Amino acid sequence: MNPTEWRTYLVTQESRSAGRETAAVVEAALSGGVDAVQLREKGRPARERYELGRRLRDLTADAGVPLIVNDRIDLAAAVDADGVHLGQSDLPAEIARGRLGDEAIVGVSASTVPEARAAAEAGADYLGVGAVYRTGTKDVPDETNGVGPERVAAIADAVDLPVVGIGGIDAGNAGAVTAAGAAGVAVVSAVTAAADPRAAAAELREVVGDGR
Amino acid sequence: MNPTEWRTYLVTQESRSAGRETAAVVEAALSGGVDAVQLREKGRPARERYELGRRLRDLTADAGVPLIVNDRIDLAAAVDADGVHLGQSDLPAEIARGRLGDEAIVGVSASTVPEARAAAEAGADYLGVGAVYRTGTKDVPDETNGVGPERVAAIADAVDLPVVGIGGIDAGNAGAVTAAGAAGVAVVSAVTAAADPRAAAAELREVVGDGR
Ligand code: NI
Repeated sequence: MNPTEWRTYLVTQESRSAGRETAAVVEAALSGGVDAVQLREKGRPARERYELGRRLRDLTADAGVPLIVNDRIDLAAAVDADGVHLGQSDLPAEIARGRLGDEAIVGVSASTVPEARAAAEAGADYLGVGAVYRTGTKDVPDETNGVGPERVAAIADAVDLPVVGIGGIDAGNAGAVTAAGAAGVAVVSAVTAAADPRAAAAELREVVGDGR
Repeated sequence: MNPTEWRTYLVTQESRSAGRETAAVVEAALSGGVDAVQLREKGRPARERYELGRRLRDLTADAGVPLIVNDRIDLAAAVDADGVHLGQSDLPAEIARGRLGDEAIVGVSASTVPEARAAAEAGADYLGVGAVYRTGTKDVPDETNGVGPERVAAIADAVDLPVVGIGGIDAGNAGAVTAAGAAGVAVVSAVTAAADPRAAAAELREVVGDGR
């Protein structure tokens, strides 16, 4: 499944998973039907992310779902991930492409049209656009009120790449993001911190299907 | 020049460079005669370290001095460094070897004999041992008083790899570190924060030569 087909995209963060381990959250989310999983786990040492990444590689491969690694090209290669997701202050997309090869999926975070155009130029396969809504997570661009579905629409119009909205998205507002032109939505807490991550993933999937 | 010949090893940290840019500090230290340079710059975004690493690659290549990148295998490859230095919580040395190849220099931090033996087993080319002395830098193992020259001696005896002492080392105590069996000494502030980094590098070189 390639990024144009991703509707729901889980981003892991054990520190926001209500005391559960990330592998358990991912297993539940896969059974609820997420289309892609990103190993994020900001703040954890590389060695821990590596060990976790190997477990997530097994789980996602069994489910036939791509695994993307946040930030680090070396970690993506080490766990045999399908690709890497790069922020604006990470290594350039061209470097990831050169190291991981043509088949790898390279995603880039963009919160403006110029950033989106630059990412397309650099060979990105998809864009993570956000923060769409206000979010408590500090690891997306700091715009207090979010860039909104309007920015998602502007970027989706400007570039010929699938856009995944991220930041403050849940089942209640995901439909507006896909209606604006996003191919899919990425979530952290809406699934990781949910009482029932499997049910939350399934509900999100249903909403995003409806939103198209 | 391979790690067995390194006497003085500069580790960069712009935040500890008395307001100077790292490239200027490195240029001065190279003219003072350091044998290896490590791009560290903890806390700075990968993209900044990449841009800086490319400048340091030029400067070190002109001087015929190896450039090592701290922590990240992808960044080491991206700037065409000679190798990578890995901490105990970084990716395993075997991964670095597989990604960077047989010719790459792989260093590993070790503060105990078991860690040193494991690093040798994993194919490390040299060990960074410390913190030897008490240090204000928070990026070396947190032992209030340092492991001391005794630990350097124990590790140098236990493994057949060159040992570079690190942590709280300056011209005043470097001789004791090499006398204990270290092949060389790594410094941050003793050069980066010195009034005259070139002179500080030259003085350190003189002391370490005497210490052998
Ligand atoms: Ni490769």
